[in-house]
Amino acid sequence: MPKKTQPTLFSTDRLREVGINLFTACGAPPEEAEIVAEELVEASLMGLDSHGVMRYIWYTEQVLEGRIKPGAPIRVIRETATTAVVDCGFNFGPVSARRMVEIVAAKAKAADVACAVSRNCHHVGRLGSYVQALAEQDLIGFGTANSAKHGHWVVPWGGREGRLATNPLAYAVPTETQPVVLDMSTSMIAEGKIRLLMHKGEQLPAGSIQDAEGNPTTDPNAFYGPPRGTILPFGGPLGYKGFGLGLLVEILGGILSGVDSTVEQPNINGLCLIAINPEPFCGLSHFRRLMTKLSDYMTSTPPAPGYTEVLMPGALDFRTRRQRLADGVPVAEETWRQIVETARKVGVEIE
Amino acid sequence: MPKKTQPTLFSTDRLREVGINLFTACGAPPEEAEIVAEELVEASLMGLDSHGVMRYIWYTEQVLEGRIKPGAPIRVIRETATTAVVDCGFNFGPVSARRMVEIVAAKAKAADVACAVSRNCHHVGRLGSYVQALAEQDLIGFGTANSAKHGHWVVPWGGREGRLATNPLAYAVPTETQPVVLDMSTSMIAEGKIRLLMHKGEQLPAGSIQDAEGNPTTDPNAFYGPPRGTILPFGGPLGYKGFGLGLLVEILGGILSGVDSTVEQPNINGLCLIAINPEPFCGLSHFRRLMTKLSDYMTSTPPAPGYTEVLMPGALDFRTRRQRLADGVPVAEETWRQIVETARKVGVEIE
Repeated sequence: MPKKTQPTLFSTDRLREVGINLFTACGAPPEEAEIVAEELVEASLMGLDSHGVMRYIWYTEQVLEGRIKPGAPIRVIRETATTAVVDCGFNFGPVSARRMVEIVAAKAKAADVACAVSRNCHHVGRLGSYVQALAEQDLIGFGTANSAKHGHWVVPWGGREGRLATNPLAYAVPTETQPVVLDMSTSMIAEGKIRLLMHKGEQLPAGSIQDAEGNPTTDPNAFYGPPRGTILPFGGPLGYKGFGLGLLVEILGGILSGVDSTVEQPNINGLCLIAINPEPFCGLSHFRRLMTKLSDYMTSTPPAPGYTEVLMPGALDFRTRRQRLADGVPVAEETWRQIVETARKVGVEIE
Repeated sequence: MPKKTQPTLFSTDRLREVGINLFTACGAPPEEAEIVAEELVEASLMGLDSHGVMRYIWYTEQVLEGRIKPGAPIRVIRETATTAVVDCGFNFGPVSARRMVEIVAAKAKAADVACAVSRNCHHVGRLGSYVQALAEQDLIGFGTANSAKHGHWVVPWGGREGRLATNPLAYAVPTETQPVVLDMSTSMIAEGKIRLLMHKGEQLPAGSIQDAEGNPTTDPNAFYGPPRGTILPFGGPLGYKGFGLGLLVEILGGILSGVDSTVEQPNINGLCLIAINPEPFCGLSHFRRLMTKLSDYMTSTPPAPGYTEVLMPGALDFRTRRQRLADGVPVAEETWRQIVETARKVGVEIE
């Protein structure tokens, strides 16, 4: 286990430049390399480090193993006015997901409600980014991302063996200012966070994982095993709700695209994006005004003992973003060492 | 506080007959009285007693107060091929919700994806019933129900004052056998359950509610006050997720219909139903087959220590339904006494 050390601060420009060089060296067309670097840096800026620039390492390895195919065409293979099945061809997940945002947004603008699902999609990164992009186009965005069987570390409620991934769901809604953005895993902890805490040499919050025998533990190493442990569904004593939500993510992200969740698949995530246009319901400007009022109403409650403020979903991430834009993005020393080492494999020297 | 006593078992036919007589005496056309009685008996059969025949009492009181308007027309006031805003005219909630199921199902069959929201809707009862009805028509159903300001007992994450109702969300998905049905409040406990436990003279699970000062308590009377306590959002230490989900329910059920959540409204619930037709994505029969495989995969894990089996969402409710159909539906003595007393007010004698 690496020693716990203080992270170094990097500028956004520097991190983006490293990413673009890295993914271009991987064979990505410049516009794709830019999208991937932007999405990962953005996740780091928002404080979601587990889906941020630390993924430079794994994405590059996946290209080298032929699992990510830079430049691969992304094609709509089935569609109606309101639906689309998108074959992502194992291009980078962020490139695929951004294309799916364009597809579902265009359909929702024309037909008011739309739903798109992926086939052959790699890791999309920060799910919240894509629903946020829908909200920035004045749509209500809802998204789910499942993972293929090799990522099934989360137990169904009451189970001992993993049957689902950490299956995040996200939504974003336009207001008159910054959108409301919820991006949550349906498990007690995301796999990326377990990895990050292991990198940092820290323990997990109690009630997050079980060891291979189904006993509770806080040791991230007991999760990675072998033998492999499992993650609990979100909700503690009401974990059947988290299981039910994780299952919804599986159904929308996987089953709806026609892919069997119960056998191994080559894809990483299965993405589902749903977009709803508020305009035909109550008019966009009225909707946005009501959303602003709703936000003010929520945050107007005095905090409970032990809390200092009440925030809307996503507000903390936008605050972290502003702070990191000003101060720099912290990257753990071990993570940076691995980025430099990985870059060398594709002929990129980072000094 | 009433003494804790053993409930009496009633047959479904008997309970339904009582309901039909009651609501007919309230002035409901026979077909509406039947729908309301059926929905409430069905909720009792499924084990959701807080939304079952105990609501005979309150629904009747609401008619007597002029808040429920039996026979009121239910009208689509705005619509496109995929969307509808439905003015329920304060007819019974179950009558309104069943009509909305018909509307959204017809649109989803024609246009693949559809969304309907309510205006002037009373209490819809068991939300899961309406998404289940969509699944029984081979659609994926998703539903949310918010409540007007007088029901805002749930705190935003970290707050001391209520800003949301217990805001349930539900979904249902067709399989080759019984549908998967999740119906969950986005709070630690539903208000109906607090009321039921108070009726039964029992304490609440720890971590469910706060007293008026924001301190934890398990006494249901501390919730009803005065001064009024609050309910915590679902999720314990990760309650920001439950808050985010409750907010989604508020946005879809309330804001999207153009109704301001922050001022008092005459409605009880604001219902949103979304229906997705699996056919254009991967073909219905393939989808149903994959859903059956997924269910088998989930329930195939050995249970963790302390659990005896792993069940799909809704499976326990369907089991309770079969058992209660055979054995009868338990109704608490105090609840029955109040039903008899309420019936007398509208001229119905229950012996």
